[in-house]
Amino acid sequence: MTENTIVENRPQPRRRQPRNQTRLRQPKQTIIKDTLKIIPLGGLDEIGRNMTVIEYKDDIVIVDMGLQFPEEGMPGIDYIIPNISYLKGKEKNIRGVLITHGHYDHIGAIPHLMPKLGNPPIFTAALTRGIILKRQDDFPDAPKLEIHTVTKNDKIKLGDFEVEFFHVNHNIPDGLGLFIKTPTGSIVHTGDFKFDHSPVGDEPADISAIANIGSQNVLCLMSDSCNAEAPGYTISEKNIQENLEGIFKSAPGRIIVATFASLLTRVQQIITLSEKYGRKVAIDGYGMRMNVEIAKELGYLKIEKGTLIQPKEINNYPENRVLLMCTGAQGEGNAVLMRIANREHQSIEIQRGDSIVFSSSVVPGNERTVQSLKDILVKQGAKIYHSPFMDIHASGHGQQEDLKMMINLIKPKFFIPVHGNYYMLQLHAELAESVGIPHENIVVAGNGKIIHLTKDKIWMDKTERALTSYVMVDGLGVGDVGQIVLRDRQAMAKDGMFVIIVTIDSQNGKVKNSPDIISRGFIYMRESKELLYEVREKVKSIVHSATGDQGPINETYIKENIRDKIGQFLYNKTQRRPMVLPVVIEV
Amino acid sequence: MTENTIVENRPQPRRRQPRNQTRLRQPKQTIIKDTLKIIPLGGLDEIGRNMTVIEYKDDIVIVDMGLQFPEEGMPGIDYIIPNISYLKGKEKNIRGVLITHGHYDHIGAIPHLMPKLGNPPIFTAALTRGIILKRQDDFPDAPKLEIHTVTKNDKIKLGDFEVEFFHVNHNIPDGLGLFIKTPTGSIVHTGDFKFDHSPVGDEPADISAIANIGSQNVLCLMSDSCNAEAPGYTISEKNIQENLEGIFKSAPGRIIVATFASLLTRVQQIITLSEKYGRKVAIDGYGMRMNVEIAKELGYLKIEKGTLIQPKEINNYPENRVLLMCTGAQGEGNAVLMRIANREHQSIEIQRGDSIVFSSSVVPGNERTVQSLKDILVKQGAKIYHSPFMDIHASGHGQQEDLKMMINLIKPKFFIPVHGNYYMLQLHAELAESVGIPHENIVVAGNGKIIHLTKDKIWMDKTERALTSYVMVDGLGVGDVGQIVLRDRQAMAKDGMFVIIVTIDSQNGKVKNSPDIISRGFIYMRESKELLYEVREKVKSIVHSATGDQGPINETYIKENIRDKIGQFLYNKTQRRPMVLPVVIEV
Repeated sequence: MTENTIVENRPQPRRRQPRNQTRLRQPKQTIIKDTLKIIPLGGLDEIGRNMTVIEYKDDIVIVDMGLQFPEEGMPGIDYIIPNISYLKGKEKNIRGVLITHGHYDHIGAIPHLMPKLGNPPIFTAALTRGIILKRQDDFPDAPKLEIHTVTKNDKIKLGDFEVEFFHVNHNIPDGLGLFIKTPTGSIVHTGDFKFDHSPVGDEPADISAIANIGSQNVLCLMSDSCNAEAPGYTISEKNIQENLEGIFKSAPGRIIVATFASLLTRVQQIITLSEKYGRKVAIDGYGMRMNVEIAKELGYLKIEKGTLIQPKEINNYPENRVLLMCTGAQGEGNAVLMRIANREHQSIEIQRGDSIVFSSSVVPGNERTVQSLKDILVKQGAKIYHSPFMDIHASGHGQQEDLKMMINLIKPKFFIPVHGNYYMLQLHAELAESVGIPHENIVVAGNGKIIHLTKDKIWMDKTERALTSYVMVDGLGVGDVGQIVLRDRQAMAKDGMFVIIVTIDSQNGKVKNSPDIISRGFIYMRESKELLYEVREKVKSIVHSATGDQGPINETYIKENIRDKIGQFLYNKTQRRPMVLPVVIEV
Repeated sequence: MTENTIVENRPQPRRRQPRNQTRLRQPKQTIIKDTLKIIPLGGLDEIGRNMTVIEYKDDIVIVDMGLQFPEEGMPGIDYIIPNISYLKGKEKNIRGVLITHGHYDHIGAIPHLMPKLGNPPIFTAALTRGIILKRQDDFPDAPKLEIHTVTKNDKIKLGDFEVEFFHVNHNIPDGLGLFIKTPTGSIVHTGDFKFDHSPVGDEPADISAIANIGSQNVLCLMSDSCNAEAPGYTISEKNIQENLEGIFKSAPGRIIVATFASLLTRVQQIITLSEKYGRKVAIDGYGMRMNVEIAKELGYLKIEKGTLIQPKEINNYPENRVLLMCTGAQGEGNAVLMRIANREHQSIEIQRGDSIVFSSSVVPGNERTVQSLKDILVKQGAKIYHSPFMDIHASGHGQQEDLKMMINLIKPKFFIPVHGNYYMLQLHAELAESVGIPHENIVVAGNGKIIHLTKDKIWMDKTERALTSYVMVDGLGVGDVGQIVLRDRQAMAKDGMFVIIVTIDSQNGKVKNSPDIISRGFIYMRESKELLYEVREKVKSIVHSATGDQGPINETYIKENIRDKIGQFLYNKTQRRPMVLPVVIEV
């Protein structure tokens, strides 16, 4: 791929004076001189939003910059990105951003955050670079990124840091682990990884390189915890391919394979098998087409000439000679598989004899949607193949034995489990202890924790903590939707809203006309005339008793009264609590 | 338990005249004379809302009357009950309601539907009766139910039907299968079942009784499909108990077991183990306490004197001498475990050394919530035990080998898979075919399908279909929340709402004052002053160009203009589409 890239340091500001003065001014605070700091801004306590700051004096490198998909109770939110308040004022210290691989939970925040961080240089593998640049097309106003391609043979110097890379397996090619040398000692960050001794369209993880790093007295290992719950080893992609091959052998008609757009390993497997069994392959779904295009161009996908066809050409071939690979295995509303199920796809309609393969694990929270998608497809005549009752999907993340092997290879002094819910981090910590890392050398951190490292100690800062509250992206707004807006959305989703507009004659304090009522999501208005009549009468009487038909109009008082009394009235009648919003207009 | 109950027939109306007249009037329609009809009103295409109508001439029996929990996209809905439009006008034909067991997906619609069905007699086992009656307390206005207790030795006559019962295993005691003799032939309905040869606090399923029924030429089997995806046999509760015992042996401090309130089998296991290991048991959670009380009273739970203590007494005992059994294994917001996690529980706060057992499968859709609940508990110092990586929960539903065994025992002529998503029904149908039921003798139906049976034929009606649209329960409203209200709730959840109130002077068509804007769930208003200013100006100009400052006020036209133009303006500015609601007030 690329040649060794030696990148110049960015200009470094002069070191600040020693902190003696600070010490004098704040005698009570423990002063820790020149520790190496690791600050996870995201990715702990959660799956997604991976971003870690590594800081030594005035040098900072950042590992990954991902997004997270919204949780329940965040209706309308597109995704969440890391909070970078910690880096405010330190932008000039950022020597580089290291990206481990091309999945959105590791790259997705780049277009939003890079402009705010002074657009520091990014270092990553060729395929990841391609995917990052492609996404950047959607953000025409963002500044041009400076992305350097690195390979496993490269060494780069970033301020006081020196970084090397090693190859790991994941379910996208070009996964990189990081070996970061610092003045305090060296840190290994695994990225997302598994060991696969017989991967598909990829080299096995470079165990000898990892072992070699392990012989260099690694101070601290940060390792992927996503699969810390699962015992045993991750199944090899080779085995998956064999299981998939069984489907190719028996499928009487068309095969449709749904998976993640970014699961390029699976894409390669399916293409290889299609070529073996004489099927043309149509790829559908914007993200998947883009990724395939990039990967093909960069030589990461091996596709024979003539294998790929357009989705609209599928009907030109016999049914047992075509395969459609598409997005939508999670039941996503606008993805290809859902469009097919809803009979909204341009060229494909399910027919008896079709075999549909769901080749991805179901993301927690999507289970019901996926279930009903399968129901629709079976009803239309398809036969479904899917995990968990058939091994046709391998996780991209190492299981317990893989995780122990990584720890044993790296032999770190200190250990920080990363990338996973707290529960998984804790399990990973227990695994580390089981293979000999002393309990006190393991830190199970949370987002925003400031982890200090010296040559012989690791601890979390007790006073300082980086801000990591959610930054939500909703349409064009980044960070403008906060708890108040979300709470309102939830409240209206639950019981709807009820706006009461009362016009009061400022001359005499009397209600003019009948109060207007606008309600949505509460009850079906046309069938609730009596209730609305009662509300109007109540509102009039509330105003009447507030103004005495004469007195001055105390808007706040009237509004509060309407909100409370009508709210209670509606609750008594329906046991629902719509958001009651009174408007008083004086004319 | 109870003695044989022979129940008198309810008075039956005289048979209608033969349908020849109908035939004369509607010569085109195929007339099927006196078929046995099976109409699933719920429970197919879904998990929940189980209710089946069995009809022969003027006799109807109903099997189960359950509720279903709402799906995504149904914010605010409490639950869904079956649509009983099909039974309108036929209430007098209903000879009885047979309830297979006491879970809410089989009994939950009783308080809502029984009054509308003329309150026909219910026949069920003693424990189920107790649970139904307890729930009835929450509906003081509902008429008193007439519930007859039956046992596996009973035969009851209901019109032209004769019903016998057989014992099956499930994860609540007293599960009944039904053997319904009709003039056309006999139907077996399994209810929810598994075979457990070493159950806990229950007898093994009565295989010889089932085999005996199988020797009587069963016309049609309707069998539980919930677990048709899972290969092999269901694990025995005995094994579960052994695995749970491992936790009792090693737990250093308190044990907290969270499960469903209705999983009485698990409750018995935990109590037995607690007694063996010298732990007092506190039970917390309204539903669980109620169920335990009923089951204890009726002799379904074996509890030694002095075992049970109150939750508030827990702190009076050494930590390794107590156990708390509670609700909340699904991460439900107000259940006990969540209250403990949120440190809102009166007497229990998690401490290091606590072992928490999640002993239930996660209901699809709850995965993320459960994950974050575990995170919180681990953070507070607890150790978590849970499936799927440890067999501490057995499903209550037979797996593939159990299902095949049931078919082989009953040896039915026709087969209808019930209780499950379409996908599961289809798999169950394939299983049935694999053990020898001819393809044409299997009907994979959907809710509302009218299945006709004669002695030698089974088919689904091509013209008639029962209405099965969702009847949603929301607070006091049953069925009043429809698609329009739900759509509004979803829309407001996604992007909020935006009410614009413009007061127009009817004298001159001019806007009086500045338009009022009320918005919730869209943007944070205080930080959007400029946007609001622009909206107000735009509204004024829309009104101005509509009225020309003079002309008549066309309210509809103005409103439409505001909705469209302001909607588009807001979208351009934010890429969000709040629900824009214009109000025009003329004064």
